[in-house]
Amino acid sequence: MARVIVDVMPKPEILDPQGKAVTGALKRLGFEGLTVRQGKRFEITVEGDEVTPDRLDEVRDAAEKLLANTVIEAFDVRVENA
Amino acid sequence: MARVIVDVMPKPEILDPQGKAVTGALKRLGFEGLTVRQGKRFEITVEGDEVTPDRLDEVRDAAEKLLANTVIEAFDVRVENA
Repeated sequence: MARVIVDVMPKPEILDPQGKAVTGALKRLGFEGLTVRQGKRFEITVEGDEVTPDRLDEVRDAAEKLLANTVIEAFDVRVENA
Repeated sequence: MARVIVDVMPKPEILDPQGKAVTGALKRLGFEGLTVRQGKRFEITVEGDEVTPDRLDEVRDAAEKLLANTVIEAFDVRVENA
């Protein structure tokens, strides 16, 4: 089984309230000098032995349609090297 | 500024309802043969020019204390190569 990773992050110009909350909580716990942005990670198992370019395009299409809200989020799709 | 990535995923033996929902939604949209597990991705900007081993240990500690629930989630910490 082949695996594709999709990372979805808020775009740089978009406020990230989750990340801000985590940044504040880290500071309160005594971790200084860390700024956090929070996003999502999808591990996608693709049927078949390898991820063909067509299959990868399909995952990219799925990421754009369902996994990311492209108005406010950027995504990155890559085949995982086992 | 140096950057550290923390990936947090549900452990393999743990049910992942979010991932299941996404897997079902993809199927309904016509994407066949894709199985999804959903986790979180944190991009952490660390003050200073480089991430020293001590600093990385600190981030690992933060991940264990705050970013991941280690009962049900596994995490991976790595320095991002710019």
